[in-house]
Amino acid sequence: MTVATEIRRDPITGRTVVIDRAPFRRRDDFALEPARLNDLPSACPFCEGREADAGPEILAWREGGPANVPGWSVRVVPNRHPILRIEGGMDVHGDGPFETRDGLGAHEVIVETPLHDQPWHALDPERLWRVLWAWRTRLRDLRRDSRFTSAVIFKNHGRAAGARLDHAHSQLVAYPVIPPAVMEKVQGGTRHFEKTARCIFCDVIAAEEQAARRVISNDTPILALSPFAARVPFETWLLPRDHAPRFEESSDRALEALALLIGKVMSGIDWALERPAYNVVLHSAPLSGEADRVFHWHLEILPRVTRYSGLEWGSGIHRNPVAPEEAARILRDRCI
Amino acid sequence: MTVATEIRRDPITGRTVVIDRAPFRRRDDFALEPARLNDLPSACPFCEGREADAGPEILAWREGGPANVPGWSVRVVPNRHPILRIEGGMDVHGDGPFETRDGLGAHEVIVETPLHDQPWHALDPERLWRVLWAWRTRLRDLRRDSRFTSAVIFKNHGRAAGARLDHAHSQLVAYPVIPPAVMEKVQGGTRHFEKTARCIFCDVIAAEEQAARRVISNDTPILALSPFAARVPFETWLLPRDHAPRFEESSDRALEALALLIGKVMSGIDWALERPAYNVVLHSAPLSGEADRVFHWHLEILPRVTRYSGLEWGSGIHRNPVAPEEAARILRDRCI
Repeated sequence: MTVATEIRRDPITGRTVVIDRAPFRRRDDFALEPARLNDLPSACPFCEGREADAGPEILAWREGGPANVPGWSVRVVPNRHPILRIEGGMDVHGDGPFETRDGLGAHEVIVETPLHDQPWHALDPERLWRVLWAWRTRLRDLRRDSRFTSAVIFKNHGRAAGARLDHAHSQLVAYPVIPPAVMEKVQGGTRHFEKTARCIFCDVIAAEEQAARRVISNDTPILALSPFAARVPFETWLLPRDHAPRFEESSDRALEALALLIGKVMSGIDWALERPAYNVVLHSAPLSGEADRVFHWHLEILPRVTRYSGLEWGSGIHRNPVAPEEAARILRDRCI
Repeated sequence: MTVATEIRRDPITGRTVVIDRAPFRRRDDFALEPARLNDLPSACPFCEGREADAGPEILAWREGGPANVPGWSVRVVPNRHPILRIEGGMDVHGDGPFETRDGLGAHEVIVETPLHDQPWHALDPERLWRVLWAWRTRLRDLRRDSRFTSAVIFKNHGRAAGARLDHAHSQLVAYPVIPPAVMEKVQGGTRHFEKTARCIFCDVIAAEEQAARRVISNDTPILALSPFAARVPFETWLLPRDHAPRFEESSDRALEALALLIGKVMSGIDWALERPAYNVVLHSAPLSGEADRVFHWHLEILPRVTRYSGLEWGSGIHRNPVAPEEAARILRDRCI
């Protein structure tokens, strides 16, 4: 007996996904590689005491004392293998149909804890808050550089998610262009705004709260939901219930609610998928401020228990074997 | 010393990639998981003698004799876990901003050889030709069903590419919509045609043959090249040098040239990346025939030695640590 599927359209981007119509069961084929890399703390550049290996700090949360020595809680350093660098020009070089420009931008690493083995679901809300504080502070600072059009923060946890170290860290990349994954949301938001004069994210939030089937938690200023067109099992979005285009303008109180919710959701996902690898992505409105009426910041949590195969390369369509309604039902019970 | 990068724009889709400006070296961090799954031939549903396990054949290359028994060279069967099924309607169901439709379509498996351990780079051109014959025959047949708008053929080889069995096979999915990965090429081709009345693929081929730096082989009707905006190390495209929108209309002679070239390119990639996992994707014009002037069929080979991480999820931009000019230089030497 084969499982029936359905094709869903994401209301924001128009993206297509295929979702299995079946109850959630833990599955053997979700056991990909073990998430932990088991790299040794003694060789980890992010552990307290090896500040020189990680690089000079751009920002740190410290109880006083000098920079680049132990005593920090969160520490931001330049990425040692940056995808984009501060050096370079803004010109586009054309050669017939081929266009090239310098890899200009910024690429920073946020070391989220001085301890080696402390993943997000084990970090207490106060420490998680300091990570979010570092994100906010760095975004505010980079926004002053007019060469950067957009910034994305992301996190790789576990081997299958592309992590190369177990030590908890996130990354920030500032781009000289609006990256396609942000642009498709700006464009979707703009199309909706031109028709309705409303924010598409706010409209989706209202529809989700009414339908209730995909809401995980909505009793704080931050909403947690399983998106209608989830691309991977237990994909979860956290976003402010009221319109807020940019993460870097969040209040301390909003970040407190977010830290608390991240802890609950991550521990639910960790339980349901048995310690999966995952990616996290933070999307905030482009730095220029032009899209502030159509964009609404949000955090995407993407567990990595399925593979990116020829099916996805060839079609651009993700197949998700777990319906978001099933994921929300399970996470809701763990988030009370 | 960090490596400089450059941002490139794909001339067909407009897609952005970041390419490292550095000479190619074999790298430890390309050693992901071993490509082989080492599943046992005795439990393999695709091995000769277990035809009942694989399912009833839709098509086979046989030297006479009845169906569904040994004696075949290539065999096409329904996928046992289809992403789309023949049952279902074409209606779109709306619920506020949320749109759903039935997972209607076709999903077939092409078992490429009766032998368990015979990957593409070890298959002789005559056997590879029969695989391409099966692809062509199935596409011609599915084109008659007016519910299907587009079909994509793909292949997963090795664990990191999403394969679940070692036995060489490819898959065909027919969709009731044009999938985004095909649509972005149709749209790019249409934009170019409206400006120039020419096929963008033909124009890129002419520019590549003139520049020569990314051409791997161009001495047969099929061209092999490393695309300017390659997304992964040693990404390779094979495509007819003369305008040809649809693979299913290829002549026997074109398929012979393609089979020969696949063998050479795959053995070069196998050598350079030390037996990598890989995906293969065949894109042909949408089945309706409407885009025939703007589309040009092509085969993409995508070695899977890099991870899809938060960087890709968050930006939609691939980082490729091997410049296509470097990959072409190495593969060219192996393809003479």
